[in-house]
Order: sequence, then C-alpha cells, then structure tokens
Amino acid sequence: MKKIAILGSTGSIGTQTLDIVSKNDDLQVVGIAAGRNIDLLEKQIRQFSPRLAAVGDEKKAQELKLRVQDTDCKIVGGMEGLIELAVMEEAEILVTAIVGMIGICPTVAAICAGKHIALANKETLVTAGHIIMPLAKEHNVKILPVDSEHSAIFQALNGENPKTIEKLLITASGGPFRGKKTEELKNMRVEDALKHPNWAMGQKITIDSATLVNKGLEVMEAKWLFDVDLDRIQVVVQPQSVIHSMIEFKDGSIMAQLGTPDMRLPIQYALYEGERKYLDGERLDFAKLASITFENPDMETFKGLPLAMQASKTGGSMPTVFNAANEKAVALFLNRKIGFLDIYEIIENAMNEHELILNPTIEEILNIEQDIYKRIEGRW
Amino acid sequence: MKKIAILGSTGSIGTQTLDIVSKNDDLQVVGIAAGRNIDLLEKQIRQFSPRLAAVGDEKKAQELKLRVQDTDCKIVGGMEGLIELAVMEEAEILVTAIVGMIGICPTVAAICAGKHIALANKETLVTAGHIIMPLAKEHNVKILPVDSEHSAIFQALNGENPKTIEKLLITASGGPFRGKKTEELKNMRVEDALKHPNWAMGQKITIDSATLVNKGLEVMEAKWLFDVDLDRIQVVVQPQSVIHSMIEFKDGSIMAQLGTPDMRLPIQYALYEGERKYLDGERLDFAKLASITFENPDMETFKGLPLAMQASKTGGSMPTVFNAANEKAVALFLNRKIGFLDIYEIIENAMNEHELILNPTIEEILNIEQDIYKRIEGRW
Repeated sequence: MKKIAILGSTGSIGTQTLDIVSKNDDLQVVGIAAGRNIDLLEKQIRQFSPRLAAVGDEKKAQELKLRVQDTDCKIVGGMEGLIELAVMEEAEILVTAIVGMIGICPTVAAICAGKHIALANKETLVTAGHIIMPLAKEHNVKILPVDSEHSAIFQALNGENPKTIEKLLITASGGPFRGKKTEELKNMRVEDALKHPNWAMGQKITIDSATLVNKGLEVMEAKWLFDVDLDRIQVVVQPQSVIHSMIEFKDGSIMAQLGTPDMRLPIQYALYEGERKYLDGERLDFAKLASITFENPDMETFKGLPLAMQASKTGGSMPTVFNAANEKAVALFLNRKIGFLDIYEIIENAMNEHELILNPTIEEILNIEQDIYKRIEGRW
Repeated sequence: MKKIAILGSTGSIGTQTLDIVSKNDDLQVVGIAAGRNIDLLEKQIRQFSPRLAAVGDEKKAQELKLRVQDTDCKIVGGMEGLIELAVMEEAEILVTAIVGMIGICPTVAAICAGKHIALANKETLVTAGHIIMPLAKEHNVKILPVDSEHSAIFQALNGENPKTIEKLLITASGGPFRGKKTEELKNMRVEDALKHPNWAMGQKITIDSATLVNKGLEVMEAKWLFDVDLDRIQVVVQPQSVIHSMIEFKDGSIMAQLGTPDMRLPIQYALYEGERKYLDGERLDFAKLASITFENPDMETFKGLPLAMQASKTGGSMPTVFNAANEKAVALFLNRKIGFLDIYEIIENAMNEHELILNPTIEEILNIEQDIYKRIEGRW
C-alpha cells in the first residue's frame, strides 16, 4: 500500500490524482489540502477518509472542521496546516498540485521529512531550484515530475545514462494564438485565450499557454530537474500535442513519449515512481491521427518564452521576478484590467527594475514575490 | 577493449560496422567473414588486422590466402570456416550481418560458445526463433537487434518491464510503391522497385521493402525478440522513416525512437549493448522536417505483410517456406525472369503446397529451404 498526501486536492491535478487513487487498490490517500474550496474538500474527505485535511484559509478550516466532525479526519489550517500535511508521518509521497509560491514551504518541509515529491507545482523549481534539488539529493528524495512534458522526458530517460543527453526537446502546442502576430494579439480577449486547443486545464495555466510563459516556466524547470544547461533545451512547437517531449542523445537517437492528452498518465507514472500500471482511457490511433506537424516557436511574437530564457540565464532571484510578475499580470488580464500584450510588458518592466540577488533564500524569494505583487498592484 | 567478429563484413551492415569500429578506440575487430568478395575482404584485413578471416566460397578462400600471406591473418573457408569465425575465442560479440539462411548455423555455434549476437541476419529468428531464443537464454547470451525497427523497440524498452508492453508499433516506409494498386504493380520493373524513398540498402532488402515482405519478416522477428504475440504487433506506415518504431505500454504511454536514417546508430547501440556513445552524422531537425504522417498498411495490395502474418501464425516450418520462396522469387525478379506480383504468387503457392513440420530442427529448416528452392527453380 502506497500512502499519498495531496497538496492541492481540489484543483485539476488534485482531482485527477484522486481518480487514479480510486482505481488502484494499492494506493491510499492519507492527507489532502486545498486553499479554500471546502465544499469539494468535504466530499473528498467523505470519499477517501484521509487522516488529515488542511485548508490554507484559516476561517474556511474552522468551517470545514464543523462540517466533518462526524468523521475521523483531523482538520488543520493556514501555512502551519499545509506544512503539517506535508510532513505527516504516514505519507510516502507528497503530490504538490497547489498553484503558486504557497507550495514552496510545504515542499521544502516534505523533502526534509524524506517524502518523495510528485511535483506539479511549477513555482517550486522555477524560483527555488537551486535550493530544492540539492536538498532532495541530501535527503535521498525523488522529485517525480507530473507535468506532461517533464514526465515525457522522465520516461524517455528511464534506463538511460543522464550524461548521454545531448539536448531536451520540449514540445509546445503553441497555444490558442499560434500563428498570430503582435498586431492581432492586441485585442485578444480572455475568452479567446482560454480556448486551449488540446488540454483541459486551469485558467491561469491556459493563459500561460497562450503567452508561452508556461513553456518558459517548463524550460526553467527542466533545467533543474534534468541538470541540463539552458542552451541544450529546445522548444519545438507540435500543435497536435501528441508528442509530449523528447530527448536527443549523444548518438543522435531521439526518444519521445507520445499519448493522448490525459494528465492521469503522468500522475500515475509519478505515483508509482516509474512503474507502469494499466490505465483506462483513449489510446493513440495513428491512422486516425494522420499527421504530426512541427515548427519553431515564434519568439518575436510570444515573448513569454524568450523572457523566461533571459530570466533563467540571469538566474538568482530573476526567475522569481518573472514568475511573480506573470502571476499578477495574468490575474489582471483575467479580471479584464489589462490587455493580452500588457502581460509581457508587466513582466519585462519587473525584470528590468529588479536588483538581482544571486542565491536567494526561500524567505528572500517569498519577499521578492510580495514586493513584485505590491509594485504591480500599485500601478494598475 | 570490446572484441568483435563480423559475419558478412563486406555487405552494407558489415562495412558500416567497420566504420563504427574505426571511430572507437575501445572496439576491436578480431574476425571477419564474407561470402565471396575477397577484394574488399583483403582491404579490410589490411586495415583492421583481424586474427581470422573466413570466406564462404572455398576457392575464393584459397585465393585470398595467397593474397594476404604477408599478413598475420589466418584464412579459413566454407561453412566450417564461418563456424570457426563464429566461435573464435577472442570475440565477445558476433555481428551476424550475412544475408540468408547461411547465417543460421554459425549463429547457433556462436550462441553455444557464449558470444553475444548483434543480429542483422533476418532469417535466423524468422525460421529458427523457436530454437534460437531458448538457446540464447540457456547460454545467457544477449540477442542485440541491429535492424532499425527492432533497435528502436529495444531502445524504447530500456529500463521498462517487458510485461507492461501492450503492443509493438513497427513503422514502415511503405516502400517505393506506396499508394499504388495491384493493377499498377503488374508492370513495375526492377529499377522502380530499387528506388527506396529513405534508406540506402542492399538490392534484396530493397525489393522486400517494396513488397512489404521485409516488414512481414520484421514482424516475425519482433515476435521472437520481444516475446509478444502476433496480434499485439501492429504495422504503422510512416513514409518519412523518422519514427523507427514504438512501444505502447499498458498505461497508454507510447515510447518512440526517432532519428535520421543512419544504420550506424543501431549498429553502435548493439555493439555497446545499449550504452550510448557519441556518433557523428546528421541530426533530426524538426522545423525542417515539418511533418510526420501516418497511415495503415494496404494489406490488400501488398500481400507480403499478410502472407508473413499467416506464415507466422501457422508457425513451425511455415516461416521458412515463406522466407525461402521469397528469396528465390526476389532473385528471379532481379534477374527479370518474373514480374513484381509473381513474387506474391510464388510465396503463396509454396505455402499452400507445404506439409507443415511443427518444431523443425535446424537441419529440417535447411532442407526445407533447399526443397523450396528446387521446386521454384523447376518451374521458372
């Protein structure tokens, strides 16, 4: 029986993780956590009977406590609660499916407590890769990627010597605006940006996919996860989202992972630490698929990717600035306060204004985030 | 230093194997063998200084002996010579790159002598898979595929549990006649059939690619190599020959190996037993490639594939009949004695007339081959 705790059980990755758990007798959920959605948390507590549930919002935690007092589930609240969940003794694996930098402290705590991390929280490695990766090594903890691109590379790396990697080829759908030029992007509305061609995902990540910021964050993460220099990571636009990513090895051989767009596959692969188990769902039908196409990303128009590359090359605290500015800008866009292209401008300005810290601590990273938030809020 | 003997050093795979050896200081050729091409054998002896060289043709062996008496290379001839090479003490790996059933006896001898086999001879597993695979297991010998499709599967299987294979997806270019119908194939000439769209190969295999017999032989081989039932092996036409083959696993994940059409990659991968080393040569450029297309094979028109499936399902001596009849038919076609479609008819007739032997010995397999040859020669 493999025991799992889920940080962010009510979101897209969290609910799909629970779907996997419900279909496998050898998986058990011992703890769940969410930010505020206590309606769904209550349902999940009643279905999966975890020992512990944490709610980021303290008031909501109190409310949930009353609602589930007929169960054996202990309810905890706030960051302390999230950390209590992250380090709970029974859990072997922590799924970090919560969105945003709120995931970083619980992840650090879990690693120090020897939990393997099924990593779906992008911010962890983007902002604190220089802390997380050595820490994981020190505590002999596996960082198991859940993102489909990183999982594809993780799968392609199975059985291979990492030293023989020539480059990583991270595929990108190109998002809903692929092919459009800057002039056309000016007037794009929230509705347009939320139409992702292939994947059903949360709103924030769907906008990030339209700006290519998401691909930039993935490149940054890949650098840490696979210890590969930025100049050996290439983004390939593959609009059908059939090839989830690839590795080119020193002998010129390319290993690729393909599949239908089903996040449950990388989640399951991470939960079982690379062991393959049956998974229901649609299979790829190549004759029906007919073709897979490729193109280079349009870095002139979709500045999310080159800005991310620049932030990653600068290193230190710059990726935190890139990420925090983007987070705020996307929220402003979703609230119809700014236009689509303003997202790039906000990120660029934040990066230009930032005074770099070379090796930021977790505290500094979180402070920079707050500082960036305040600056942007002050202007819009 | 890894020591290698090459059965069939003057052919396409043999010369490319020597190219790999010449570029790697940790590889050494200790023995080479060919059927009759002593001009090239002499050059290879002078360049690579093997201890032993074998020539299938006894007279040619005598001639070569005179030519290279200034060297330290021992020359042997006939089947005894080929077997002496196959079991030579110094060699760790035998590359079986010789074409035809002449490769079977030396391969059996090499396995019994504990040599790993870098397998490029199709006939070995097609006709004698039921003998070879258990023998290899008994002698703890690796069968390392050199064919690009099987190497792709071998690479995709690296680090995976073979029990989690759902199916093998063997890709096919579709050959030079892809898209044509039976009526159009009637008048196809040798020149037309020899124009392979992607791979530069020997004449026999290029015709086999046009008839899809080659793909049929590969399916038969894959069944033995990877211990997968025929109904879990699917042929996918992928005309650009970029995806060299794939595995679908039980979780729906598909692992594919891609690359430029360079046989030196699977040869090197086999020689190093799955360890990746730098290999020069062109790399895949996805933006330039632009697209990969897929279609189902046309089994109505290209009967080489369904006939092979049928022979493999029948099992026993039937694959030998399929292979021997095809060998003879292709020779007749190359000599302009028969038309393209007659190849299918000759194979089909031979299979229909054959009295099945369920578990043929090597001797029976070789006798059936001769019998099939004689019957076909008697008619044309």
